[in-house]
Amino acid sequence: MSIAVTILGNSSAKPTASGHPSAQVVNVNEQYFLVDAGEGVQRQMARRGISALKLRAVFISHLHGDHMYGLFPLLSTLGLYGRRTPLRIYAPRPFGEMLECFLRLCETNLPYTPEWVEVDTTKHQIIFENDSTEVWSLPLRHRIPTAGYLFRQKEPALNVKKYAIERYDLSVKQIVDAKRGEDIVLESGEVLSNDVITYRPYATLSYAYCSDTNYSARLARMVEGVDVLYHEATYAADMRKTAKERGHSTTEDAAKVAKMAGVGRLLIGHFSSRYKDLSLLLDEARATFPATDIAREGETFLIEPKPHKE
Amino acid sequence: MSIAVTILGNSSAKPTASGHPSAQVVNVNEQYFLVDAGEGVQRQMARRGISALKLRAVFISHLHGDHMYGLFPLLSTLGLYGRRTPLRIYAPRPFGEMLECFLRLCETNLPYTPEWVEVDTTKHQIIFENDSTEVWSLPLRHRIPTAGYLFRQKEPALNVKKYAIERYDLSVKQIVDAKRGEDIVLESGEVLSNDVITYRPYATLSYAYCSDTNYSARLARMVEGVDVLYHEATYAADMRKTAKERGHSTTEDAAKVAKMAGVGRLLIGHFSSRYKDLSLLLDEARATFPATDIAREGETFLIEPKPHKE
Repeated sequence: MSIAVTILGNSSAKPTASGHPSAQVVNVNEQYFLVDAGEGVQRQMARRGISALKLRAVFISHLHGDHMYGLFPLLSTLGLYGRRTPLRIYAPRPFGEMLECFLRLCETNLPYTPEWVEVDTTKHQIIFENDSTEVWSLPLRHRIPTAGYLFRQKEPALNVKKYAIERYDLSVKQIVDAKRGEDIVLESGEVLSNDVITYRPYATLSYAYCSDTNYSARLARMVEGVDVLYHEATYAADMRKTAKERGHSTTEDAAKVAKMAGVGRLLIGHFSSRYKDLSLLLDEARATFPATDIAREGETFLIEPKPHKE
Repeated sequence: MSIAVTILGNSSAKPTASGHPSAQVVNVNEQYFLVDAGEGVQRQMARRGISALKLRAVFISHLHGDHMYGLFPLLSTLGLYGRRTPLRIYAPRPFGEMLECFLRLCETNLPYTPEWVEVDTTKHQIIFENDSTEVWSLPLRHRIPTAGYLFRQKEPALNVKKYAIERYDLSVKQIVDAKRGEDIVLESGEVLSNDVITYRPYATLSYAYCSDTNYSARLARMVEGVDVLYHEATYAADMRKTAKERGHSTTEDAAKVAKMAGVGRLLIGHFSSRYKDLSLLLDEARATFPATDIAREGETFLIEPKPHKE
């Protein structure tokens, strides 16, 4: 029950020979979600051995080309592969109009339906939910409406502590009740409080993707305590003014958000093509938040549960 | 005054980890033309050291995604790079509607104008022309309206033979007149016929791009005698039926066209992703037309003039 984040691309808008634009696959409990879809995303998935047919849903942060030009080619390919299950695409307006153009002019015969779900980029709310996972929108501060996405595992079912089963000789019915969160009344009349005899088998994990955005203290509150935070750091600290004007962050902005939010680990990316050597950017971020790494293209970052003790 | 063809991508529709979809840069006398623009074309250009800013015009064969999904990202990037010169895009209908969607929904502030020129895919005619170059449309037989493109250098200006200048002691005016194609009348009254005293400094070169298409004898007549022919060969010879149904060619089809047309050299590509080892395809084509090669991604094929003797 882990979360694995595979970086398919990490460059900002100006294309380079060495890297691909923004795209990540977030695997939560073996459910594959695509987050942003820069040009080349389908080939990048193939190179990392991730089948496009596995995708459960797509989340697009905003409609700048370097975050979405790879999506329509991917939708075409899923048609070639014979996908039948509808595919939900979470994206801000006016994605619906783009999708309409695509379906009308490029792909009139897809064997499945791409379904747009509009993301309100002003609200921090649950936009996707199933038994094991929830995804929250994160309002970001960019030049056009932009949302980050927070992936959070739901609490796993309760386990009953072994010592309690043995000591009180609990029946199957009593164990099932305890797993449901009920207190147990013994034959003796003694009441076993549920929190004393049960535990969660593992802590829930969380991952937040925040690109593109100005520094935002509000964002820091929304991602408080996440295990891993990806936060764009387009510019070095000395480009503060440019970053602010263009709706981007510096290394220091990203590190400050990570520190305020008390996250477990910070990944930075979306670097301007001007930076050939990324070590300066990493050093700057680490000066404020030591647990920082570069979200390098091709790498997979595994967020693993720490098992709870009984 | 050569033609250089750089293969940026050569795969058919299903994307693979190893190759990119169709795109080539054809450099005619240092004028750069993009022919088809599969996904990733701008990064492929960067990898081959070809500046996107150099592009003079774009020619799209047809509107299947594997031949054009890379175009809109490229148009965006040219905006980021500050291009001001309009860019002509030659493509069949309904490309204009796609471009309209793109300009309305993705790029409302491009600093230059992408101009669509409609290609009539039923006609073999000159669609682009300047002092040194002409481009002809080639009607192809695919599932949707599709054109190939024939690039042809124009005849270079006449040179006057050295021996004539010396023997007849020609004046500057007489040389200029001869270069214009005029006969020269000497003081003695003798007339020097223009074709006797002048020559073309080099033979003109030509390159034809033909993808995607069924076998076409008409096409063979249109590309007669070209120096290099790129002809798709999506399938091996044993898939003749599938090729025909899907509007594609086999290796044998491509080689047959090359042979009938008497071209100098054949390049084959657009192979189905089912073929991991291309040597079988190459062998099949060479059995009919020995001067065949694979249009491998990343390679540049140089077509050089053979200097004429005086």
